[in-house]
Amino acid sequence: MVIGGGPAGENVAARAVRGGLTAAVVDSRLLGGECSYWACIPSKALLRPVELAAEVGRVPGLTIGPIEAGKVLARRDEAVAHYDDSGQVRWLDGVPATFLRGAGRLDGPRRVRVTAPDGSERTVTARHAVVLATGSTAAVPPVPGLREANPWTSHEVTAATSVPERLAVIGGGVVACEMAQAMHGLGARQTTMLVRGDRLLPRMEPFAGELLAASFADAGIDVRFGTGAVAVERPEAGAKVTIRLPDGPPLEADELLVATGRKPATSHVGLDTVGLEPGRYVEVDDSMRATGVEGGWLYAVGDANGRNLLTHMGKYQARVCGDVIAARAKGEPDDLPALRDTADDRGAPQVVFTDPQICSVGRTEAAARDAGFRIRTVEYDLGSVSGAYLLGDGYRGRAKAVVDEDRRVLLGVTFAGPGVAELLHAATIAVTGEVPLERLWHAVPSFPTVSEIWLRLLETYGL
Amino acid sequence: MVIGGGPAGENVAARAVRGGLTAAVVDSRLLGGECSYWACIPSKALLRPVELAAEVGRVPGLTIGPIEAGKVLARRDEAVAHYDDSGQVRWLDGVPATFLRGAGRLDGPRRVRVTAPDGSERTVTARHAVVLATGSTAAVPPVPGLREANPWTSHEVTAATSVPERLAVIGGGVVACEMAQAMHGLGARQTTMLVRGDRLLPRMEPFAGELLAASFADAGIDVRFGTGAVAVERPEAGAKVTIRLPDGPPLEADELLVATGRKPATSHVGLDTVGLEPGRYVEVDDSMRATGVEGGWLYAVGDANGRNLLTHMGKYQARVCGDVIAARAKGEPDDLPALRDTADDRGAPQVVFTDPQICSVGRTEAAARDAGFRIRTVEYDLGSVSGAYLLGDGYRGRAKAVVDEDRRVLLGVTFAGPGVAELLHAATIAVTGEVPLERLWHAVPSFPTVSEIWLRLLETYGL
Repeated sequence: MVIGGGPAGENVAARAVRGGLTAAVVDSRLLGGECSYWACIPSKALLRPVELAAEVGRVPGLTIGPIEAGKVLARRDEAVAHYDDSGQVRWLDGVPATFLRGAGRLDGPRRVRVTAPDGSERTVTARHAVVLATGSTAAVPPVPGLREANPWTSHEVTAATSVPERLAVIGGGVVACEMAQAMHGLGARQTTMLVRGDRLLPRMEPFAGELLAASFADAGIDVRFGTGAVAVERPEAGAKVTIRLPDGPPLEADELLVATGRKPATSHVGLDTVGLEPGRYVEVDDSMRATGVEGGWLYAVGDANGRNLLTHMGKYQARVCGDVIAARAKGEPDDLPALRDTADDRGAPQVVFTDPQICSVGRTEAAARDAGFRIRTVEYDLGSVSGAYLLGDGYRGRAKAVVDEDRRVLLGVTFAGPGVAELLHAATIAVTGEVPLERLWHAVPSFPTVSEIWLRLLETYGL
Repeated sequence: MVIGGGPAGENVAARAVRGGLTAAVVDSRLLGGECSYWACIPSKALLRPVELAAEVGRVPGLTIGPIEAGKVLARRDEAVAHYDDSGQVRWLDGVPATFLRGAGRLDGPRRVRVTAPDGSERTVTARHAVVLATGSTAAVPPVPGLREANPWTSHEVTAATSVPERLAVIGGGVVACEMAQAMHGLGARQTTMLVRGDRLLPRMEPFAGELLAASFADAGIDVRFGTGAVAVERPEAGAKVTIRLPDGPPLEADELLVATGRKPATSHVGLDTVGLEPGRYVEVDDSMRATGVEGGWLYAVGDANGRNLLTHMGKYQARVCGDVIAARAKGEPDDLPALRDTADDRGAPQVVFTDPQICSVGRTEAAARDAGFRIRTVEYDLGSVSGAYLLGDGYRGRAKAVVDEDRRVLLGVTFAGPGVAELLHAATIAVTGEVPLERLWHAVPSFPTVSEIWLRLLETYGL
């Protein structure tokens, strides 16, 4: 029994069925989850034309017209299947697994109570396991008037049906950066970011946020650091928003996006009926099994366990989880390498689809030092790689690698620059696969790709 | 002493100097070689706007004007530094290494005769080694009238100062495909390819050439298989070319590009003075040392040894070569892993910068079978990966992996699709690093990138 039909939940079911079990997925919302309708997919559909227009602007001989926001929004609608999950339902049917449309909540050991849209209730007892894949929701900070102002979160901004004239954004993380750029690129006349700290993307290497801030400044996005909303006023729905700041005049905007973090969607799923505390991340071991629950029948994957709030890591956990549940059900060995989550600890890969794109895998320098590794770092200017120069005029970018000096393997890699998203997987293989530098030396990047940065990093290291 | 100042020659010198030796590079042409002025760099400068315009055409909401060929040619001129090598000369000075401008040829053991542009001659004796890095030139097939017609080769087409109205191309390999698309995209009204065999890119997986042929057909490039020039007539320089075919009416064109292969530039470098046959590839061992030359002082890197006619492999060989020469000169161990070329045998990475891009590393299915490996292959439609769908409407592409069933490692990977060039390095690390499938399983591709193809391939394989 899987509670939550996002990508993680769907994948648990599919892997468990592949392992010979039966599976059911419970969700009251659209099957496919936040990622498919209100996060990764629509946000990238909105960003793609903005990114591409920027690329064209760097290539002499090409001229591009203004972006037609209406057509971009229409393609976003197509990308989210017009908020219709029948395709996903058919997919799950084909797994085959059962879809129970309704709100699912735990009701004691191995029991799940399903409340259908018509209010009817049924209780299903899982033969082997229950998996929580309930995801997360946007956290809205306790600023006076903020909640009453009905601000956009990631959910609403990715589903926008028009572009606000003036957009204010509270936050400086991935969602804030991506959506500020999307809306600005699609025509917002005034885009203002209020960032509590002193940089964008604070969990990544500092140069990444610096490059992004420079790009935002060039594009006319007003990024204000060390500030935030003190109070928010919006007299009525659809009216303009007034945001009071710690100093200076208040900020006026037509819409306000809050992107200051997430909280687990575990408040109303019956955690209390099995001895766990509602509203918190469900702690799991590396087989995704919840700790502290007698009988070992409860699992949690994706955002609900708080390991890494990323779709692809949720799906990865789901593969581990579905496989391990099947192995345990069949009495097979449950400790093979494929049945343990090792990637989350080594550091999840992540791509920020802004211009420049920012991506990283593994540990930052700071995180590696904190973890006690003996490290050396190497950095290199991406723009001085021939392959980057050939992509367009004025290419600006940077790469950094964190090397574990004791084992001569990479602990982390960060790329920042236009079009670097697809460079990341090489780093993910190197970091997760712990490929020694001496082997990487024989992996020759093709000339003239941007991937030649690998050669430059290794040369700079001293190979 | 390095004869030939292309990327391979330059890198031998730089690595040898880094290893504590002195080095000189001899070349009568521009320092930087074919790659910098008449191959990789200008071809990609010409292709970039064509590729980008095609990408824009797939994204609703964007409109692009016609490509201004003049501006593209101007940027190409900038990319080749206006055929001025003073920047490269400064770089070599800084290594530091000596540049001897002149024609270099062997003159017996360890001796190099240098004929300066003014005709003066000097003979230099290398203390440790002489390295041949003389590259290759276009092979022109013995078709009656062809040579007299002064056709373009890669050298001339990449340096074109205008786009011909009607272009005929003989050949179906990388240069033929890239330049046919570049010229067509930049405005050629009629582009015709005469391909002797039955597919484009015959050394790659068959689906790659098929996808490319479909794209060329859509773009209006006339690709004719199983045919070629029987005779060529061009009454005078600059006049139109008439190409007689095995059957049907002759083909008329304003310019003719011949791209049917390369031959080593070793005819006039004094190979006969050291017991080797002029005009042939110089056979080398894995330390890049020429076989069959007494005393072991002669090396050959890059196109001159015929291992893989690719700039990046030449540079790779140059790193091996410079390092091994330094190690031997100093009496240090000369058999460390970094001092052997292992990548050429496992299969060089290569990118074809067409639309769709085609790239591959390692062995094709056919090559792996020929080499006696027990293999299994997996293929997957790239267009059905979310990250590809988000790049634009109608994304068409395909990926294929060749698995060594005995060792559970990848022997080869091929990607074909728009924008796949930067996906290749992940495959290069996996193939060259022989990363087991079970480790690749934990290398999670970031969602929604095109790199998610890795997950699909591994799932399809059965992980």
